[in-house]
Amino acid sequence: MAIAKDIQAKIDDLTKPKGSLGMLEKTALKIGIIQQTLTPKLCKPYNLVFAGDHGIADEGVSATVKEVTRQMVYNFIGGGAGVSVFARQHGIGLKVIDAGVDHDFEGVAEVVNMKIGYGTRNFLYESALTHDELNLALERGAEVVDAIHAEGSNVVSFGEMGIGNTSCSSMLMTMLHNIPLEKTVGAGSGLDEKGVRHKLDVLTRAKNSYKGDGSAFDIVAYFSGYEMAMITGGMLRAAELGMVIIVDGFNITASLLAAYALHPEVLDYCIFSHKSNEGAHALMLDILGVTPLLHLDMRLGEGTGALVAYPIIESSVCMINNMSSFGAAKVTRSFS
Amino acid sequence: MAIAKDIQAKIDDLTKPKGSLGMLEKTALKIGIIQQTLTPKLCKPYNLVFAGDHGIADEGVSATVKEVTRQMVYNFIGGGAGVSVFARQHGIGLKVIDAGVDHDFEGVAEVVNMKIGYGTRNFLYESALTHDELNLALERGAEVVDAIHAEGSNVVSFGEMGIGNTSCSSMLMTMLHNIPLEKTVGAGSGLDEKGVRHKLDVLTRAKNSYKGDGSAFDIVAYFSGYEMAMITGGMLRAAELGMVIIVDGFNITASLLAAYALHPEVLDYCIFSHKSNEGAHALMLDILGVTPLLHLDMRLGEGTGALVAYPIIESSVCMINNMSSFGAAKVTRSFS
Repeated sequence: MAIAKDIQAKIDDLTKPKGSLGMLEKTALKIGIIQQTLTPKLCKPYNLVFAGDHGIADEGVSATVKEVTRQMVYNFIGGGAGVSVFARQHGIGLKVIDAGVDHDFEGVAEVVNMKIGYGTRNFLYESALTHDELNLALERGAEVVDAIHAEGSNVVSFGEMGIGNTSCSSMLMTMLHNIPLEKTVGAGSGLDEKGVRHKLDVLTRAKNSYKGDGSAFDIVAYFSGYEMAMITGGMLRAAELGMVIIVDGFNITASLLAAYALHPEVLDYCIFSHKSNEGAHALMLDILGVTPLLHLDMRLGEGTGALVAYPIIESSVCMINNMSSFGAAKVTRSFS
Repeated sequence: MAIAKDIQAKIDDLTKPKGSLGMLEKTALKIGIIQQTLTPKLCKPYNLVFAGDHGIADEGVSATVKEVTRQMVYNFIGGGAGVSVFARQHGIGLKVIDAGVDHDFEGVAEVVNMKIGYGTRNFLYESALTHDELNLALERGAEVVDAIHAEGSNVVSFGEMGIGNTSCSSMLMTMLHNIPLEKTVGAGSGLDEKGVRHKLDVLTRAKNSYKGDGSAFDIVAYFSGYEMAMITGGMLRAAELGMVIIVDGFNITASLLAAYALHPEVLDYCIFSHKSNEGAHALMLDILGVTPLLHLDMRLGEGTGALVAYPIIESSVCMINNMSSFGAAKVTRSFS
């Protein structure tokens, strides 16, 4: 990381009190290191929203009915969802991928077809994905990232849609990092207290009935989802390609936990956009030892946190490229 | 505030779990109330940077030499300062106003001439501004806001440049809200521990030597600055005109404390962009009972926090105007 020192020196020579742009400075440093340059650039940003259904949703673990997964896919491409609005606001490309929704999108040109099945199996009774399906999901996620990279994109965020998927995220946290379910289970899209208790009961039973080999790969296959596994694969490929990964909230960070368990180097490519209002997200960020940019009490998913944070990440790049140095601007340095 | 209920109902009917866009929802509600509409708009945003010098700087209360005030004015208009870069990034208008710099900008067309003097008096010995000067500063700040409003602007942020001005801000906090100086004095542009102790000593002597009438107007005249008083006047006029005011960090919030002491209604028009890394800013926000959008450890001033937060404020407006309702998008509501 010889370049890190040079990047920091450049940042410290910009016309501002040292350190006074706080996290913008840290973000610029990180992107500079990822891109190995003193003049980083963000090109053709994309938000990739993967959608899939979940067997576990049959257990009543969500405040929302399963049909909402497909309804929201139509809302994404129709332009009326949060993620559609924020992507348009910032000129960020939006791709919507059917990873495994319980619905046929044949003939719907705006939906990328990567379907593995019509929803995962119910992990209360069996592995949600087979090992072959997990391999396929990782590969298909990677393919989607390859496609945007081929278009010239060097920065990507991920979003998810899948009723029931906060249950997957809680299970991944619990099983990969040995954290009690009481700390990883939350309200998701809006469960009341009784609903959260029921979700905790279902997931406790799922944990107790797990009979896999305990490897990261097996745990991810057992408790992840088609959309989350594709995101995991997409993140791993993005890191291989040296892209900047903007990490959204709870479910996306859970997909990253899976990627991190398989290849810890992925973390070097990640910028954390926000702390979700889903309680356990803060704990996830602690596990990874990272600090997010935003704390806006958001918990929508879809990649909305990443999109809302995007201009701030862009500000960090504008800062390092476009601010004057003390010398060039003929400004006297402070004493410190 | 009959309209508040209608705005909230519209927000709750957008296709997302209720409340899941957190502070974006609160921001949209606030802007809707300011503009008394369910379809708020942000038009021709401006950041107005007022610059002035300070007699108190002669006491060595800053890590930076006084010449930096004028040097930075040239950097603002030259395009190399933080505020210049972020304004360009977001297409926000930037006006740089000479409120009272110890330098002649005659013939420099990009600097708006509102000069009251070549730096304020030293408030260790006397009132920094006379009462007449304060009235003049309030009026000139209002004039600048009138001008952008006439151009069609309905949203404004303020920035400041003035070596020594965190001392003014600490004094305003202490004198207007009876808070010990130990809690209001900080490192400013980068004082070390010894420097902070000296600053505290100087300001303690200033406090003890104050012999004014204790009215808000007299305190503001005594301890404010030309640039800060113009900002106070600008804020009061912006509120009168029903504009949205995006409040930056420590010095700008101190200027708002002054405005608030004169006319508390100004607060109804303010959105707080960020919590500065200058320690006492958090306390200021507590005094006002407000929650800022960002916590990025920034402490540059110039209005940079307001500019970096601008796209997030815009996101809130995009949300309320452009997201689909459940009915229109044919999405089933959650149970909660």
